[in-house]
Amino acid sequence: MTTSERKREDAEIRKDFPLLNPETAYLDNSATTQKPRQVLEAVSHYYESENANPLRGLYQLSLRATDSYEQAREAVRAFIHAKSTEEIIFTRNATESLNLVGYSWTADNLKPDDEILITILEHHSNMLPWQQAAKRTGATLKYLECDKTGNITEEDFRRAITPKTKLVCMTHVSNVIGRTNDLKTFARIAHEYGAVFVADGAQSVPHMPVDVQDLDVDFLAFSGHKMLSPMGIGVLYGKKEILDAMQPFLYGGEMIEYVTREGATYAELPHKFEAGTVNAGGAVGLHAAIQYINSIGFDKIQEREDHLTAYAMEKIKEIPEVHILGSDDPKEHHGILTFTVDGVHPHDIAAMMDEDHVDVRAGHHCAQPLLKFLGTMSTARASFSFYNTEEEADRLVDSMKTLRKRMGY
Amino acid sequence: MTTSERKREDAEIRKDFPLLNPETAYLDNSATTQKPRQVLEAVSHYYESENANPLRGLYQLSLRATDSYEQAREAVRAFIHAKSTEEIIFTRNATESLNLVGYSWTADNLKPDDEILITILEHHSNMLPWQQAAKRTGATLKYLECDKTGNITEEDFRRAITPKTKLVCMTHVSNVIGRTNDLKTFARIAHEYGAVFVADGAQSVPHMPVDVQDLDVDFLAFSGHKMLSPMGIGVLYGKKEILDAMQPFLYGGEMIEYVTREGATYAELPHKFEAGTVNAGGAVGLHAAIQYINSIGFDKIQEREDHLTAYAMEKIKEIPEVHILGSDDPKEHHGILTFTVDGVHPHDIAAMMDEDHVDVRAGHHCAQPLLKFLGTMSTARASFSFYNTEEEADRLVDSMKTLRKRMGY
Repeated sequence: MTTSERKREDAEIRKDFPLLNPETAYLDNSATTQKPRQVLEAVSHYYESENANPLRGLYQLSLRATDSYEQAREAVRAFIHAKSTEEIIFTRNATESLNLVGYSWTADNLKPDDEILITILEHHSNMLPWQQAAKRTGATLKYLECDKTGNITEEDFRRAITPKTKLVCMTHVSNVIGRTNDLKTFARIAHEYGAVFVADGAQSVPHMPVDVQDLDVDFLAFSGHKMLSPMGIGVLYGKKEILDAMQPFLYGGEMIEYVTREGATYAELPHKFEAGTVNAGGAVGLHAAIQYINSIGFDKIQEREDHLTAYAMEKIKEIPEVHILGSDDPKEHHGILTFTVDGVHPHDIAAMMDEDHVDVRAGHHCAQPLLKFLGTMSTARASFSFYNTEEEADRLVDSMKTLRKRMGY
Repeated sequence: MTTSERKREDAEIRKDFPLLNPETAYLDNSATTQKPRQVLEAVSHYYESENANPLRGLYQLSLRATDSYEQAREAVRAFIHAKSTEEIIFTRNATESLNLVGYSWTADNLKPDDEILITILEHHSNMLPWQQAAKRTGATLKYLECDKTGNITEEDFRRAITPKTKLVCMTHVSNVIGRTNDLKTFARIAHEYGAVFVADGAQSVPHMPVDVQDLDVDFLAFSGHKMLSPMGIGVLYGKKEILDAMQPFLYGGEMIEYVTREGATYAELPHKFEAGTVNAGGAVGLHAAIQYINSIGFDKIQEREDHLTAYAMEKIKEIPEVHILGSDDPKEHHGILTFTVDGVHPHDIAAMMDEDHVDVRAGHHCAQPLLKFLGTMSTARASFSFYNTEEEADRLVDSMKTLRKRMGY
């Protein structure tokens, strides 16, 4: 692709995103993405012409709201290739999805002496719920470590899993170093041991085609707001037979079949796990986000994100005082470049880059044990979306080059 | 107020609500309300000019997102007169708020032989979490009954509470019969016994001034979507000293101070209870909803809702086959008129009213034990908002009058 072709494509995409502007390079996309107008318009359209409490009313408006909500569920099902819409639970975000499993699945399935296996790569959201489940059930939480580039091999995994392992929880793509775990292989091995496999898809589902049947994971959690949709909507995929056997999580309206003073029988899937008034507006927004992603296509999304990552990495490698965590291979970053600058605290990096209107994140990225393992307490992170441009990558690199001088070195 | 003055006021208010139209009388406001354009515009404005992951970033955009989110919290605090923003937890909806208390407070505070006291008036969302907490902790769940008009007296309450009562959970306004419970008196008595008092404000906070310090309740739960805001945002108010002593509920990013492989220390209030990426867009919508409510004023809101209720009740009383549940006093309904029609199933009522473009709800209203107590399995419910009109009440009544004939009586 020539530079002028790329610029034309940049402009074509970026005109859909009202917040993006030439003044500021927004490079914190792993934290949350910006929203195309198609998504904002879909949400407004829902509230302006279809809004009612879904699933409860018998009148036309409520039926329309229910339709829109359930069509969003079908869109999510198709997007991740689940077998059935019964396997798609709408939650608030990936964190709630993982906590749902952390409370409900573990309550009936873990006992003292059982083991939970997670990796050192996990975001706190895929770590703390298992720490807590271990405390409540008496199970042991074990950590599988990666190499310094973030890689976990099949041999590593086979060494860590044991006949006591009942649950394996693993991120698909690390939010710190961008590396992909080979979930298909690890889930297959977990199943050989009879363990259930929970995948954190927060950083993969927005960036690559994910097929839950092909991966054969038992659960997959992800957030809408990291994939162009509004905040407040997320997804838990779970295999039907496992969800069916689980106790509910939140209790209230919608998720019941019949209630007496003493107890209740619960609704069928997926409603059993969706207590209270659902977020139909959020689901409609997620549906529009999926349509938008499909209209661009993952081929194009990956080409653009991989190109930007490679483009930026090549230039950053020429700056001796800047160090990128993880793999040397741009394809093993999925747009995520977490870095340190010799002698400059990451908070200062972010503050100076903010002066240059380059938005990057600094801190522990909700992965303190990983950072400790990698020998650091804090880093800066730039993360690209397909709507970012070479010019923005240049601004990142240009800002990087000035940092040590501005700190007085 | 003259009829023409009222019509002018109707038009003035209704022009703000894009979904409302002369063809359809939307009378399911207790389930969810429609949204004024001011709210939809505030949400779009957030995503078009302020969106980033709040609380995490150090760059300007993220600080603006954080500001907007925390300003929403301050608006909620002022709206319910809480002492501090530390006492305002953003949740998904009232159901999640109640489940948060149901998991986290009960875990360390209930033991076998303790009693939980709730009323028969409760919505399933303020009943099932306590059934579950009782099962988990071995505590006993006790029901306080009302009279046939929904009234609970101080004497009733004093007879039901015991030195074993550790927790009292009560709705402020019943979602079925619209009756208010005297929370101030009941909370005072609960505190005499050393019990903690949980209030369900889902049907009160949208309709009347609520002052948590004056009521002296320990917790108050409510939903944004029932008070003009988008779906997916709700609130749990809790007294600081109680929230401080509680274990967290959802675990993940944002709610931690420091994480090791073995455990974590938690963030200060209110973030301790807000795991994962927050719903800043939803909070901004709730903030705009509060501003809208304040701009109309509760005096006006109550005058309009009370007027409509009285206006409709008077006409309905003249239809011998229609029976309204609860009090004869319109002021004891807060816009909620739940009714039965002799010989006509509530589902048929709702379906025929839908033909007449009058949107009412039919079913158990998520309060099966209450309906059983009142001697019915199912009812229809019309619920008014301040944006409804006399014409819409007329259409409700006119439709009511035709129902038996249409069923062949």
